[in-house]
Parts: sequence; C-alpha cells; structure tokens
Amino acid sequence: MDSSKISDRIKSLSTKNIDNMYLNDFLLTWDKSEDEIAAVFQTAEALRAMRTDNLACRVFDSGLAVSIFRDKSTRTRFSFASACNLLGLATQDLDEEKSQIAHGETMRETANMISFLTEIIGIRDDMYLGVGHTYMKEVARSVEQGYHEGVLPQRPTLVNLQCDIDHPTQSMSDALHLINHFGGIEKLKGKKIAMTWAYSPSYGKPLSVPQGVIALMSRFGMEVVLAHPEGYNLLPEVEEVAQSNSRQSDGSYSRVTGMSEAFENADIVYPKSWAPYTVMEERTRLLQEGDLEGLKDLEKRCLENNRQFIDWECTEKLMQTTKGGSALYMHCLPADISGVSCERGEVEASVFERYRVPQYIQAGYKPYIIAAMIFLSKFKNPADKLAEMVKRADPRVV
Amino acid sequence: MDSSKISDRIKSLSTKNIDNMYLNDFLLTWDKSEDEIAAVFQTAEALRAMRTDNLACRVFDSGLAVSIFRDKSTRTRFSFASACNLLGLATQDLDEEKSQIAHGETMRETANMISFLTEIIGIRDDMYLGVGHTYMKEVARSVEQGYHEGVLPQRPTLVNLQCDIDHPTQSMSDALHLINHFGGIEKLKGKKIAMTWAYSPSYGKPLSVPQGVIALMSRFGMEVVLAHPEGYNLLPEVEEVAQSNSRQSDGSYSRVTGMSEAFENADIVYPKSWAPYTVMEERTRLLQEGDLEGLKDLEKRCLENNRQFIDWECTEKLMQTTKGGSALYMHCLPADISGVSCERGEVEASVFERYRVPQYIQAGYKPYIIAAMIFLSKFKNPADKLAEMVKRADPRVV
Amino acid sequence: MDSSKISDRIKSLSTKNIDNMYLNDFLLTWDKSEDEIAAVFQTAEALRAMRTDNLACRVFDSGLAVSIFRDKSTRTRFSFASACNLLGLATQDLDEEKSQIAHGETMRETANMISFLTEIIGIRDDMYLGVGHTYMKEVARSVEQGYHEGVLPQRPTLVNLQCDIDHPTQSMSDALHLINHFGGIEKLKGKKIAMTWAYSPSYGKPLSVPQGVIALMSRFGMEVVLAHPEGYNLLPEVEEVAQSNSRQSDGSYSRVTGMSEAFENADIVYPKSWAPYTVMEERTRLLQEGDLEGLKDLEKRCLENNRQFIDWECTEKLMQTTKGGSALYMHCLPADISGVSCERGEVEASVFERYRVPQYIQAGYKPYIIAAMIFLSKFKNPADKLAEMVKRADPRVV
Repeated sequence: MDSSKISDRIKSLSTKNIDNMYLNDFLLTWDKSEDEIAAVFQTAEALRAMRTDNLACRVFDSGLAVSIFRDKSTRTRFSFASACNLLGLATQDLDEEKSQIAHGETMRETANMISFLTEIIGIRDDMYLGVGHTYMKEVARSVEQGYHEGVLPQRPTLVNLQCDIDHPTQSMSDALHLINHFGGIEKLKGKKIAMTWAYSPSYGKPLSVPQGVIALMSRFGMEVVLAHPEGYNLLPEVEEVAQSNSRQSDGSYSRVTGMSEAFENADIVYPKSWAPYTVMEERTRLLQEGDLEGLKDLEKRCLENNRQFIDWECTEKLMQTTKGGSALYMHCLPADISGVSCERGEVEASVFERYRVPQYIQAGYKPYIIAAMIFLSKFKNPADKLAEMVKRADPRVV
Repeated sequence: MDSSKISDRIKSLSTKNIDNMYLNDFLLTWDKSEDEIAAVFQTAEALRAMRTDNLACRVFDSGLAVSIFRDKSTRTRFSFASACNLLGLATQDLDEEKSQIAHGETMRETANMISFLTEIIGIRDDMYLGVGHTYMKEVARSVEQGYHEGVLPQRPTLVNLQCDIDHPTQSMSDALHLINHFGGIEKLKGKKIAMTWAYSPSYGKPLSVPQGVIALMSRFGMEVVLAHPEGYNLLPEVEEVAQSNSRQSDGSYSRVTGMSEAFENADIVYPKSWAPYTVMEERTRLLQEGDLEGLKDLEKRCLENNRQFIDWECTEKLMQTTKGGSALYMHCLPADISGVSCERGEVEASVFERYRVPQYIQAGYKPYIIAAMIFLSKFKNPADKLAEMVKRADPRVV
Repeated sequence: MDSSKISDRIKSLSTKNIDNMYLNDFLLTWDKSEDEIAAVFQTAEALRAMRTDNLACRVFDSGLAVSIFRDKSTRTRFSFASACNLLGLATQDLDEEKSQIAHGETMRETANMISFLTEIIGIRDDMYLGVGHTYMKEVARSVEQGYHEGVLPQRPTLVNLQCDIDHPTQSMSDALHLINHFGGIEKLKGKKIAMTWAYSPSYGKPLSVPQGVIALMSRFGMEVVLAHPEGYNLLPEVEEVAQSNSRQSDGSYSRVTGMSEAFENADIVYPKSWAPYTVMEERTRLLQEGDLEGLKDLEKRCLENNRQFIDWECTEKLMQTTKGGSALYMHCLPADISGVSCERGEVEASVFERYRVPQYIQAGYKPYIIAAMIFLSKFKNPADKLAEMVKRADPRVV
C-alpha cells in the first residue's frame, strides 16, 4: 500500500455522516446507516494500510478492553485481542466461572464494577435465542447509566462479538472481503449471493452468521438468496430486515427451497450449517430450566435431524452450476470438510482447498473491522484523528 | 477537575514524610504513618484528576504486575488490572492450578521465579485465619532477599488485595469516599460511623472488611462503633489497633450490642455480614487437614448460625434513627439485598437503591488507591515525579 | 553495568554472520551456527544491561505474542511474558481447552487464525516423544505458508519453549550462566561438565533438559560427560549431535556408568531426573490411543523403576570429589530436594542451599535469552537496531 491510498480512505471517511457513532455501541448492522457501515470499511482499510506501512495505530496510552465470552472461541478472541492491542488497549477477560456475573441488578452492578477504566466491552453470547442481544443491551444500558451518574469517567462502548441475532464483526469482514475481491462496494450491485444451509455432524450451530449475512449483503443491491431445509428457518424479523434492505438498495431477497436453485448462476456461495429453529427455541427453554441432561439429549436429536439432509453439501458439481463455474466460496470457519474434519460435512475437500487462501484472507479482516468499530465509537472526528496519526508517523516496529 | 487541583495535591504530597514507602509493601494500614496514609489519598486523587484531564499516567515502559488470587474475585481483579495498566505495567496472573505454588522453600523459589522483571505482586488470600497475611510476608521476605542477593534486578513490592487481617485497598477507598463526601479529611473528626454485622444467607464471609474499616476509620478522630451478634467478634489484635488509634486521634472506639444502638445518630453506617469467629478458626483447621467434606459441612452450620440473626438487616426504619435520618450507607459490594439477590439479606432494597450511586462511586476509587500504593513504593520523590508527568502532558487518548 | 559494556556487546554482535536468523524460528540449538548462538548471548546481555541502565527495550508499538503451553508451567510462562513485555508485545495465551486446536488441516488453519497481528509464537510441548518438535515444525510451516500466500502481513516466528528433543531457552540460559560465572565463552574450553541422572519420586520428567545440555555444552570445547542408570538413555540422534559437536569444538563427549565417575574432577555438575526411555515411548503410544488409565498406570511403574536408583543423589560426599571439591552445581529447577520437597530426591539439602543463589541467577537469564531470540528473528540488522535504541535512550521507568 502507499500513503495516497490511506489519504483516500481518510478523505472518504470525512464525508460520512457518522456523528451518531460517537460513544455508541455496535450491536446490529441494521441499526447503522449506510454512511456508518461505509465508515467502518474505510476506517478498517485505513488502519490496515497504516499497519502495512509500519505506522503505529496506538491511540490509547492506557485503558482496558473487557471481553466476555459465553461460548468457546479462538478466532474472535484473537481478533478482539489484536484489535485492542493495535489501538493501545489491554484486554482483560471476564471469566464468569471465576466471578459469577448474573442478570438483573447484579449484572448492572458488575457492568459498572469492571468499567471504571474501561473503554470497550466485547461480548460473545450466541447459543440461546432471545438471550445474547438482550444481555448486551442490558450491559450497554448499565454503563450508559453509570456514565451519566458520574460513576464511570468514560462511556465504555460495546462491540457485539456474536449474539443470537447478528454477528456483525463476521458479516462486515465478509463484506469487506467481497468489496476488495470485486473491486469496490458499488461492484457488488446485482451480484448473486447464495446463503445456504449445509450439513454438519458436529453440533447445532447458532443462526447469527446466516442472519448477519442476509441482513448485511441485502444493503448493497445484491441478489440475496437463502436456502435451507424445512424447519431450519431463521428469525422472521431478520428476514424482514433483509427484505426491506433489498427494496431500498434496489437488490432482491428471496428464499428458495434447495441448494441447486440457490447456487445456480451465483457469484458468491456461503454454504454453512445451523441448528433447526425449534431446537434453538427448546435449547433456550432448557437452559432457563437448568436442564443439562435435556440439553445433551436435544443436541443428539438436533444432529439426528441434520442427518436427513446429509446431501446438502457444497460439491464440485454444484460449484459448476454457479456463474462461470467459479463463484467465490465463503465460510466463517471452521468448516466441516468432508473426508477431512468429518466423514460427510458442509463442503467437499477439493472445493474448500481451492478457496482456502481467500477464506483466510477474509478472516484476516476481522481484527481491523473490530478496531474500526472501536475507533469510530471513541473519536468525534475520526478522519481528523487518522490524519493526525499518519502525520505523526510513529513507527509500529522501530 | 482542573490543573490547579492537581498541583495542590502534588504540593500537599511533597510535604509528607514518606521516605519509608519507597520499595516497601502495603500490607496493613496500621503499619503506615498518618503521612503515609495521607500520601496515598493525595496520590490517588492526583492520578484520578490527571486521567480526567486526559493526561497519561504511564511511568513504566515495560514491567510485569503479578496477581495471585486465592479466592474468586471480579472487582479487585479489575481494579488491580486497571491500576497497573494506568501506570504502564502488564498484569500476569499466577494461576496456582496451572503452576502449583506452595509454602516454605518452594514458595521462596516461586516468588523469585515470577519476579525477574516484575515490579508489583498483588495477592488476595482472605478465607483462612492466620494464613493470608503470613503468606504475604513470606513472599515479601523472599523477594526482598532475592533483591539483596542480586537475583532480582528490582525489588517487587507487594500490595495486599485482601488478607485475613486487613483489606487496605477497600478501607482506603472507603475512606477516600468519606473524605470527598464530607469535604475533607478534617471533616471526618467527630463523625459517628457504625460498622455492624448484618444477616447474609450466601456464605461465610471473611473478617477483613470490618477489621480494615475499624482500624482505619479510628485514625481520623471519628466515633467508631462496632456491633455484632455474640460469637461474631473480630480479631482481638485488630480491635486493639482501633482502640489505640482512636485514643491517638481524639476519637473513640466502642463495641455495642445491637444494630439500633450502633445506628443511633450515626453519620455513616456500614452494615455487612461476616462469619462467626469460631467458624473462621475451624475453617482454617479443616483446610490444613484437607478436609473438604468438613469444610462443606462447616459452611452449612455457619449459615444456620447466621439464621438466628436474620433481623440484623439495614432497614428504612433503622436508617431513620441515624443523624437526620440520612446517614451515608456504605458497603464493599456485592451486598445481599432483601428481595433482590436473596429473600432476606443485609439491606432493604429501597435503602440500597437510594445509595447505589454513591456506593458505585466509592468502589470507583479502588483502581486509583491501588495505583497510588504502587506509585509511592516505586518512586523516591513521588511528588516530583507527578509534577514531571503533568509538565510532560502526554495525552492518555491522543 | 555501564554503557561501554553495552557498546562492546553491540560491536561484537555486528561482527556475527546472522543473516539466516531473520524471520527464522528458534527450535533446536544445533540448527544454529556458532555465530548465531553467540549472537543470542550478546543480544541477551545487551538487553539485560540496557534494562539495568534503565533504558527502554520496547521495539514494538503493538503486536501479539501467542503462547501455547501443552504442559503446566510457571517459570517458562513468566519468562516468556517478561521477554515479550520487555520488547513491547502483548502475550495472548491459546488455551486449548477453550479453543480446541488439533493437528493436520485444522492445525494449519488455527495457526493462521491466531497470527494475523502476531509477531511471535512460543510453544511448550515436551511430554511425548516424537510429538513436540513435529508439532512446532507444522506450526512454523503453516505460518510460513500463510505469510507467502498473503494471508499474514508478517511472518510470526516460533520460539521453542521446550519440546521432546530440545529445551533451547533453558540450555542457552544455563550456558550464559556458565559464561558469566567463568568469565567468558572461551573460558569454558576444557571444563568438565557432568550431566547426570538423579533420583526423583515426583513424576517422569521429559528428556529435553539433559538433551539440550549435552548438545549445547559440547559446542564450547568442554569435556561433556553423561551418566544415567541403564534404560534411561537419551535420544540417540541427540547423543550423535553431542558427539559431532565435541569433535568440532575440540572437546569431548562420553557416557560413563555412574555418578561418581561423572562427578570426579568435574567443574560443573548438573544432576537431574528424567523418565526411562521406554516409558517415554509408551507414554506417547498411550496418549495416541487416548488411554488415560494406561497413562496413570505407566506413571506408577515409572516411579517404581526410578526407586531402584534412589542412591543417585547429589550428596556432599559426591561434591567433594569434584574439582577442588567445589564444582558449580546446576539445576533447571524445581529440584527434588531430599528432606525438603521429598524424603529422598535429586540433591541433598545442604548442597542445594549452598548453590541456591547461583541457580536463581541462572534462571534469571531466561527472559533475556527469549527476548534475544525474538529480537534476532525480527530485525535484519539487530546490532544497528540496538545501537539506535541506546542512542534514543528512552527510559524504562520515567
């Protein structure tokens, strides 16, 4: 990269109406305006280019970034840690086993107690319908209140690291990958993307990735197509978001019944497993009842149900039906690869292998997307701030 | 805040006789002189004001701060992490499960092995009488020796994050809250503070908070009153400290038999549960014998014993008997709130709710108190050093 | 120290042929040339002297250092954290329980996913023959590939924090201790070092320490003598390395049958326990079969086997047979000390006690050795870089 590209990014950022991002959380992409979404891409790319040019991106001399992972995580954990470190924040994990956080009044208290010198709170809570997003809003309300009451000297902002409804750091990384792959956000117009279910024998996966993808990609004038077996529907309110977005962006959103219809002539395919909707609902009920045996049994039934749809696999044959036989294959990783990580899974090994590098590049945007979300919530004039940093030109590695 | 306030703090600090704090630990408040106690408050407030004015407080370019938590902790863990991060130190937790630290020779060795580039060791060890403070002294002696033998290039200093005897980071935060609430340390003179037991159904809590409170508040000329049910007495040597302190400060220390007598006309009330003294003693014995079943059984008997005193609750009715019906309610948090976190607990919900914000503000002093303890142990002329930092005026957030 | 010593180190470093260290891993000492080994010592000592002179050693404004510990660790964990912190990197532990890393394709993926903004990966994997080193090479190949494919913007370099074959950060710290103790690397020529087995009742320890010691010390023209009971042999390929090294360095390598022969007239003794070779082999097989019961049973048999050789103890009597009765006693720590940490162990308490301080000093080199390995892999002209840092003269503590 060169510095002219960085200044183009900064110039573009300076034209966006993003006042509302300042001291605000990033929970759902559809809460954000077109300008705000674009600002995240520009900032992420500016930060990435700066790092490539060995420019330090540190803006905090001190400050904590708290992470709360209510589900196992490697990728997101490291992306969050990288993003915070890039900006100068130290991550501190709130390990609930070691500290017992709870909902209600106690949650409000804990949110304040961990936030006295905290700039950012990143939360992952994705396994139960109706839980994760609600929890994040409660935490956000608690620290907002603490800030206004004079308890907290700064307003920690929340970044959704995956909830039951959306997975914005994933879908935004996916979108940035598409933008760079196709050569610009405007080039996405008219492209067909197939978000489809795929068979997995491993576990009942959350709905937030497909939901995040249809809700975000529908903003760019794309032809968004969803396909899944009966009973694997997504949250109706998110489908409505996709519907409404596609109308506004002159794109389209539709649901089709099979993988073949979805893949036909697609520019991009995103075949990925998730759990049946009723399983997600029952899982939440069992969790609330503390029924661990029930949860185990449910998981078993979930995988048995999946088994009916073992032919929902992204094969070479299916790939040949896509635009020019060469649609871009995407996955949020890790994928269940047939004959590699399992006997039969989401994707044939040769397809996965052909797209391995692009997928890794796709994943590599996440630290910068997270850093951009943080950056935009922390500076009133982020474009000026970036310009200042470029001018200062402190090296990242001396 | 404004910079004149910061310079007042620094000026006041420069008049204190605090030579003995340099390279010294902070284990018990009563090991510290009046000047040393006052120096912590001034430094904490200076650092807090600097951060408010967006001045960087980083004094270490590198260096570790090791934390050892031998009991679950959220608040103290985050306060310690925040304080260390503010000054530029990276925290590294010594997880005893992952590393097996032990007493005796092995402890001496481990203390050195974790300290080669370590500036600070923070320890929490509060559940067993006769254990925590002894352990901290052993660690302190080990690193002192290592420093003199040339093993360690610097003398790591210890901060007591709660032991069996004292909880200085808590009591000092409490006192700073009182100082700011009443408008100065001299305004505390003659104020009545009621440190009383209160009913809790949750677990047998350590004695260090009430002990820390009576031992510290008795230094400011306050009327310190302790009340608890029979059998819930504190360590006799700490009561002697309170007695002696109050004589020297022209205050008073007394024990009364009930909450009502303690609350009567009090300016400040601090109702909080702790375990019966004999339970604490037995717990220690059972621990030493490794009798986990016995510990569980003891906990059950402890809570049954508490149950006799279920009417020891901080009610609105009791609050009305305090000075003007409006004593300042304090708690180290988390509190057992009747009808909220338990059926019957330490405090009525409406009382707690009315004082929620002041309590959170009280808790918010802790990171600065810890940072001040670190700062004063690390610089021979802390006032000059603070003045230098103010003059340098690096921003915390660029 | 004084600055002339630092510049001597830098001058010496600038004469070494170390081009091949740039962007390269540190896995085995015998993969490194004499110049490369010497460069690590010079750099470690330069960094240590700089820190002593209160010069900041930070070269990274941001960047992660990932640690993967597949075995319990305190010393190495803290040494690694200290080294990374000294240079400005933030450590992030990859906890396999929380994230499930595996071999094969998945390992390749994980290696990339944790490395987007990662400078260093430190791995400890020492309990199974044929596993640790292989694993490290796989990780190294994965990130090398990721770097060349444009997935990773920088090449994270690997530091072996102990594998099944070598323990380079330990042996290099040991060697630096000897160099400083005897007054120069050339003074080691002709010195006799006895690496011997010793009795331990605690657990079946890995072979990497004795292997690392014989393979490294044989490079300095020393008389390296190995002694162990029958059945406790080391990996034959490492003995061959020692053999070949000693021929090249005009030293000698030999195996003798007992402690007394090894200790006779020795300048340095390194008595330390390890598990029988067949136990190590069987352990690996049982691990691969996931036979936890078998592993427990094997451990029992291992300790029973050790018990036959309970007289392999470093006693005062044996020490008297060494050169002048005053050989330097070494241990990688923690030692099994007779009458202290166990009834009968590797060393008599009075011997250990007499050498406690030197041993702690020996351990204290490890953070600098690790920092040097990192430094040399990250800068093309490390001598110039060090000179720059000395000239800049930022203080470590303001």
